[in-house]
This record gives sequence, C-alpha cells and structure tokens, in this order.
Amino acid sequence: MNPLFNLEELDRKTAVDTIGLTGKNILSVDQFDTELISKIFDRAREMRAMVNTVGGVDLLKGRVLAALFYEPSTRTSSSFIAAMERLGGSVIPITQGVKFSSVSKGETLADTVRTLEQYADAIVLRHPQVGAANLAGDYAHIPVLNAGDGAGEHPTQALLDLFTIREELGTLNGLKVAMIGDLKNGRTVHSLTKLLLHYNVSLRFVSPEILRMPLKIMNKVIDAGVNIRETHDVADVIENADVLYVTRVQKERFGDLAQYEEVKDHYVITSELIERAKEKMIIMHPLPRVGEIHYAVDNDPRAAYFRQVKNGMYIRMALLAAVLGEA
Amino acid sequence: MNPLFNLEELDRKTAVDTIGLTGKNILSVDQFDTELISKIFDRAREMRAMVNTVGGVDLLKGRVLAALFYEPSTRTSSSFIAAMERLGGSVIPITQGVKFSSVSKGETLADTVRTLEQYADAIVLRHPQVGAANLAGDYAHIPVLNAGDGAGEHPTQALLDLFTIREELGTLNGLKVAMIGDLKNGRTVHSLTKLLLHYNVSLRFVSPEILRMPLKIMNKVIDAGVNIRETHDVADVIENADVLYVTRVQKERFGDLAQYEEVKDHYVITSELIERAKEKMIIMHPLPRVGEIHYAVDNDPRAAYFRQVKNGMYIRMALLAAVLGEA
Amino acid sequence: MNPLFNLEELDRKTAVDTIGLTGKNILSVDQFDTELISKIFDRAREMRAMVNTVGGVDLLKGRVLAALFYEPSTRTSSSFIAAMERLGGSVIPITQGVKFSSVSKGETLADTVRTLEQYADAIVLRHPQVGAANLAGDYAHIPVLNAGDGAGEHPTQALLDLFTIREELGTLNGLKVAMIGDLKNGRTVHSLTKLLLHYNVSLRFVSPEILRMPLKIMNKVIDAGVNIRETHDVADVIENADVLYVTRVQKERFGDLAQYEEVKDHYVITSELIERAKEKMIIMHPLPRVGEIHYAVDNDPRAAYFRQVKNGMYIRMALLAAVLGEA
Repeated sequence: MNPLFNLEELDRKTAVDTIGLTGKNILSVDQFDTELISKIFDRAREMRAMVNTVGGVDLLKGRVLAALFYEPSTRTSSSFIAAMERLGGSVIPITQGVKFSSVSKGETLADTVRTLEQYADAIVLRHPQVGAANLAGDYAHIPVLNAGDGAGEHPTQALLDLFTIREELGTLNGLKVAMIGDLKNGRTVHSLTKLLLHYNVSLRFVSPEILRMPLKIMNKVIDAGVNIRETHDVADVIENADVLYVTRVQKERFGDLAQYEEVKDHYVITSELIERAKEKMIIMHPLPRVGEIHYAVDNDPRAAYFRQVKNGMYIRMALLAAVLGEA
Repeated sequence: MNPLFNLEELDRKTAVDTIGLTGKNILSVDQFDTELISKIFDRAREMRAMVNTVGGVDLLKGRVLAALFYEPSTRTSSSFIAAMERLGGSVIPITQGVKFSSVSKGETLADTVRTLEQYADAIVLRHPQVGAANLAGDYAHIPVLNAGDGAGEHPTQALLDLFTIREELGTLNGLKVAMIGDLKNGRTVHSLTKLLLHYNVSLRFVSPEILRMPLKIMNKVIDAGVNIRETHDVADVIENADVLYVTRVQKERFGDLAQYEEVKDHYVITSELIERAKEKMIIMHPLPRVGEIHYAVDNDPRAAYFRQVKNGMYIRMALLAAVLGEA
Repeated sequence: MNPLFNLEELDRKTAVDTIGLTGKNILSVDQFDTELISKIFDRAREMRAMVNTVGGVDLLKGRVLAALFYEPSTRTSSSFIAAMERLGGSVIPITQGVKFSSVSKGETLADTVRTLEQYADAIVLRHPQVGAANLAGDYAHIPVLNAGDGAGEHPTQALLDLFTIREELGTLNGLKVAMIGDLKNGRTVHSLTKLLLHYNVSLRFVSPEILRMPLKIMNKVIDAGVNIRETHDVADVIENADVLYVTRVQKERFGDLAQYEEVKDHYVITSELIERAKEKMIIMHPLPRVGEIHYAVDNDPRAAYFRQVKNGMYIRMALLAAVLGEA
C-alpha cells in the first residue's frame, strides 16, 4: 500500500510570532498593554487591506477553529467564522444556541473543551457564565478565545471598539469618550473603559441613577487619574464628545416602570440631538440596538456602528492568526 | 514587524460579468428575460460539466456567503451551501431555523443584513414574510439572493424548474405543461408560470376548485395569449402533457374535510396513471412530497424530481458566480 | 460568452482504492475483517502524521460531505466535520438536532437522502432509529457512513476504539479487555466486542445483573471460543486488565433505586482503584462521562479517553478518503 502523503513535501512554514501571542488564550482585556494593542491593530490593518484586495488568503489553511456558542450570538459567531474562513481556515460550527447532546447528557465544560481540542487548533467560546472562558483556558492545550462569558469579559469586542475609535478619529489620545445607557450591566463599556485607561482620554458616563458604572470600574478610572464626569442625560455631553458609545437601557432593569418612562429619552440618539454634536465625532454601538439610536441617524457619516462591526472581523482575523502562530 | 502579505502579489483577476449580474440582487423572476435566462443556463451547464469532472474549483475562493434562513429549509440551504463550496467559496451557516439572538433581542432585518454584509460578499435569505428579500436588498450593499420570502418569490426555484424542463426535453417551446395541486398558494407554480410565459407553451392548471390559480396570475397568462385550460382532475391532462409539475394539496386548506376526501385522489400521481402518459415526458415536484407522487413512480425514467434537485445546485452556482462578478 | 472553465485542464487524479472501499457504505462493524481493519489503521496513522505535520491537505478538495444528524451529537459530528475539513473537503452541516423543515413537513428519510446526494459526495447519518443507516444506504447512490442509528450500530466508534487499543498497547493480541457498566444497552461495547473477536483476546464483562451483555452478543463470544468471564464488580478485574472500557450505568435503568444505590459504586473508576491496576494498561470511555470516571484519574497517563477522541478523527479521515476513492 503506497503512502497517501509525502510528508517531506508537506512543508509547514515556521511560526512567525512577532506579536507574541502564539499558543496563548485571549480571555480578558487585562492581557493587553499599549504595545501589544498597537501590534494587533497593525495586523488588523493588514487584514483589512488584504480583504479589500482579494477577499481571502491561505494563511491558516489546514487549521480548524471550533466555534462553541452555548448561547446564540449571530453577530459574534459570524464574525469569527468569516475571519477564520477569509484566512483559509475551516470552522466546526456549534453556534446556534441549541442544547448540545453532550451538555444535555450532563457533560462538563472541561470535558467538552478537552474533546474539541482533539479536533481543532483553537476554540472560540461563548458561555452564559462568568469565568467559563478561564475554565476552558485552564483545561485546553490549544488557544481559547473568549467571545463573551456572561457578565464577565468580551475582550475581542473591546479591542474592536478601541480599534474603531483609533481608525475613525486617527488617534486614541486627547479624546472625550462618552459611554451612554446601562453602564451597570454593560460588559462592553466595562471592558472598553479598562482599555481606554491606557490612553490619554476624558471619560463621560451617562446613565440612569440605578444603572451607574459599578464601583470597581469607577475606582480604576479614578486611580488612573483620568478626567471623568458622571451625568444622567446625554444632552450634557453631546456638544463636546468625540465618541458616543451607546448601549441599551432595558425596561426590565427598572422595578418602577414610571421611573423608566421618566428617564428613557435621556439616552436616545436622534437626528435632532446630533445636530449639536461636533462635526468630527463618531457614534458607536455594540449592537443589536432596539430604538436607542434612531434609524434616521444611520445616514449621518458620524454613525460608525456598522463600520465598527466590520472592524470586528479584522480584529478577530489578527487575533486568530496571532494565536495560531502566523502573525 | 514584517508585513504578513505582499498585496502586490495577491492578484485579484478582473471581474468577468458577461451575464451582467455582477453586484445585483436576485429577488424576483420578473428580473429575467429569455436572453438572461439563456446565459444563466449556459453557465449552469458549465457548472454541471465542472462538477462531473472535478467536483469543485477555486473560482470563488476567498469569498464568503452568509446563508441566513429565518425558517428552516434543508433542501434550499444545503443547495446554496454546496454551490458556494463547490466554487471554492466559504459559508457562514445561519440555517437551522432557530431563534437568532439578535432577532430575539428585537433587531430588525435591516440591521441584521447591514451587519452580515460587513463579513460576507453575498447574502442568501429565506424569510417567512413577503417582501423581506426586497427589504434586505434595499439595505444591503452586497448582492442579496432571495431563497423564498413567504408567499412571495423564490426565483432560484423557478429558474431551476425551467432549466430542468429545458434540459430534460431539449426545448422550452411547443410544450404542454400541466401544473397540478394547490395552485392558489403554491409559490413555485406562480413563479414558474411567469417564466414560462416567455416561451411558446401551452398551460394546463389542474386543481381543486378552492385552490385554483389566483386571478393575478391567470390574467397574466391570458394577456400573454398562451393556450390555457383549467381542470379539476389530472386524468384530463395525463395523455398529452409534456410536463407534470406536481404540488401538494394540503388537507388543512379545506374547511370541509369531506370535500378534501372527495377530490384528493384527483391530484395523486400513481404508476397506473402514468401508463397513460407520453413516453417522452417528465414528472416534476419542488419537494418535499407527502404522498402526492407514489414511491413506485420513482423508478420510472420520467420521474425527474431528484434530477430537478441537482439542477438547483447548478443554477445556484451559476447565479453566485454571476452576482460575485466571476461569470 | 467565453467558457468559465477549461475542463481539459481540470484534472481529476485517478482513484486510488487500495483499501477497496471506494463508493461503499460504512454501515456495520460486520463489514470489517482483520485485513481491511489493518489497511484502515495504516491510513489512519498516515492521517495522524499528516495532521501533526501540516494540519491539513487538499486530498478531498472539491468534495462535499453532508452531515445529517437527526439527533445532536457534538462529539461525532465535530469529528466528521474536522476530518473532512482537514482533508480539504467541505461540509453541509445539518447537525444540531433541530427539527428539519422537510422532516417536519413529513418527508421520509429516503427522500431526504436522495435529495442530499444531489449536492454531496457522501452522507454521514446519525438517526435515532435502528436500521436508518441501512435504509439510507439502500437509497443513496453515494457512500453513506453510519454515525449511530439508535440502539443499532456505530461502526466508526468501534473502529476508533479498536485503533486506540492497538496504538496505546502496541498489539491487539494477548490482551485482557474488560468492559464495564451498562453492557445491555451500550451500542459501543457490543460493536467493539464484535471487532475484538477477530483477535486473540480475553474478555471480562463487568455489569449489574440487570445490565448484563445480551444473549446474542454472548453467544457470538462463546462461539468464537474466546476466554470470557462475567462479573458484577470492577474490583474483580482491575488487577489483570489491559483495557478498562468504561460506560455509564444510568440510574433510570433501575426500577428499584435502592438496587441502583447498592451497586453503583462497583462501576466507578477512582484513583484508589487504579492503584491496583497494571502499570501498562489503559482506561477508555466513549464519552460523555457523568461521574463514572473520577476527574482525578484524568492526570494518570493510563487515562486514554481523550486520546481516544482524537483517534476518532484519524479513523474518520481514513474512511472518508477511502469511500471517496482517494485511499
């Protein structure tokens, strides 16, 4: 029986690892300092240029990503899948939030991860419980990328948010960034705030009283000596903000619905509101939105939220290439 | 940090666009005239020859198709997925009719489409509501292919049906085409009828009284001056038909079940029935079937419904290549 | 209109078929004799070497596998998907145990299979009913691989189990293999037992009285003249076993829960227990496990169950290449 492959001829090019993330997990924004962020952004820009030129390459050919989503997230799972595919890699899609057999048979996350690592070269994990990604990272011998673990972290979202600000406004320094909406429960605003503390920014936190930024984040901000103000109304920040980062204020958060009705309009972005905004500023949103940015705003060049989505793919391409030793 | 890619070396060949569909949406059969249909069929024949020779090529390498199915349709989604894969492209599969997170969080179709277009080069959409594909096409900056929008259109099905008739019988002219079953609600018979009006055909509409072809289709047929007859029993057309296009008569459509029992057998294709049919004719069905064509008929060479399925893949390959500028 | 492809230049290399499985179904362990098993194992070893060297190749480029899972099985479906992708092929994933439209509309398995074979080059099928894979194989004109049909067969699991024993212990002869747990309902132990009868092994069946190996398997074992003992306690076999193949004893199998409580600990693998085991032996499990092997055992080098998972991918790569005429 002749051999199928001539292994001598199958040449694996040596890993590049200029970023220093080869084989590493991506679990938390706390992993990233300005130097590493800068390198990732450089790679993300290369990814953008490549996609615009040819759509895809063979950089990760022969590599397999297991996309393990315990809760559905079309946006994030599609972003990772497209990122892997445009780099020539393949995906095991376990992404539609169904009950998985092994899980329903009572298998632990640790066992599921140790199973998938037998097939795949990296795992991207979305899980409803805080700490799930860390646990997965502890057990796996291949890189684990945290795509959101409950109220915990969502580091690739924070990186794409930061990248969007950088690319849209040309710098991360000297900016006034306003975060709007549910700052208590919003995973994305917590993570983005932490990343922004690496830069010379002013922060404006705009939320209902009951949804103010948690103490642990506030204390970090204060310790960093950053210029910071809290307010209850987006009208207070609209004229000077360089970035409006909008999140949803959910009715369900309010015990007293009358209170919700009273404040809700203070966090809605309308065409009238942004007439008072700077000419060069951007409006961001992690999406999906449900009314907190009016549709009429979409046509304004300052509406950056769909460009923000696209940046997610470039950032994930950069990270996948990096953890798999090809960047 | 050395660059990952040499963009100069990544050469994107110039778009071909001989069909004239580059960047266009595929939303309705009304887009297609005989010249365009003829070109698409030529490309579909090339796809068939290619698949039979090598299985797949790299024509759409680096391209990504988002398959967004708001209701499950194994047949149609599998057909598009295989089509994209055999052309070397990749797929973001959102295909299993589950509740998508973004949707369940209240995101609009417009926002979902504008999100997916950041990742993908084309979107194929199945949606339960009439007009959904048009709405998606209005918002998207990449081609949208309508894979069925409720009682609306399903243009790729109509094209594959027409292609099947052409390939099986060698012509589209001079044929007597009988449509059988639920002609009132059948999206496929409406669309196929519209396409057939471009050719010199005779039409026979065979249905229960309460499931007759709607006025708006009937009037189009009459205006086209086509030879047309309506009847209640397939026995009336079996001897002369060149094509039997069979659809299901659902019990649920009848308020009076006794009425259903009385007429149901008039629309069932049996081995006995087709003994009276022409030697060179074909039996088609959009599938799935539930009893309206007996299994014993499957072995008859005139049973064309599984070959019809295969033609769906070739037609979709031709359309994907065309809208993506490679045909 | 210029042709898209030059078919002369698209060269399909001639099928290899050294294994003799080209175009065949993989439905039952009864298909495999020692010579065929040996060839498959040789190919699986080549797959392992290739994956370790480059991750993936283009052997099955242009080929499409339909993964049709009527019940969810993350482990098995992921294994087949990764296997196909690492060989350069593509997958139509219908894998998440949802209700498929065609099925919910009443389509038969025969029609679903005859539809999918129009798009794909092979079908891997998981179905809750015994005989489903055989029925699919009867109707399909392309290879069908049985990935489990209810209480029936799961031949690729049996092959990967056998391969694991062979690779871990260097031989299949002269071994004492103990099967532990639910031997009555365990599809995997039945199939593995059948394969082991081709070799010179001793078998130990360890189960509660009500979950003993069924007569039909016992009689096969006895007819084969194999050294065999049945017992109720893993402690009876721990000192001499070369292989502990552990399966789960489900509480639900017991009408009398007091009886379950009384016996359950006799089938649990603990660190204390394996202190008495041979130094060179292995512990296997088809997974998922729910308590029947303690987590503390995982760090023991004799714990082979995750390596067993990986072997599943290699075996499926070997089989896919073989049935598609490339091995």
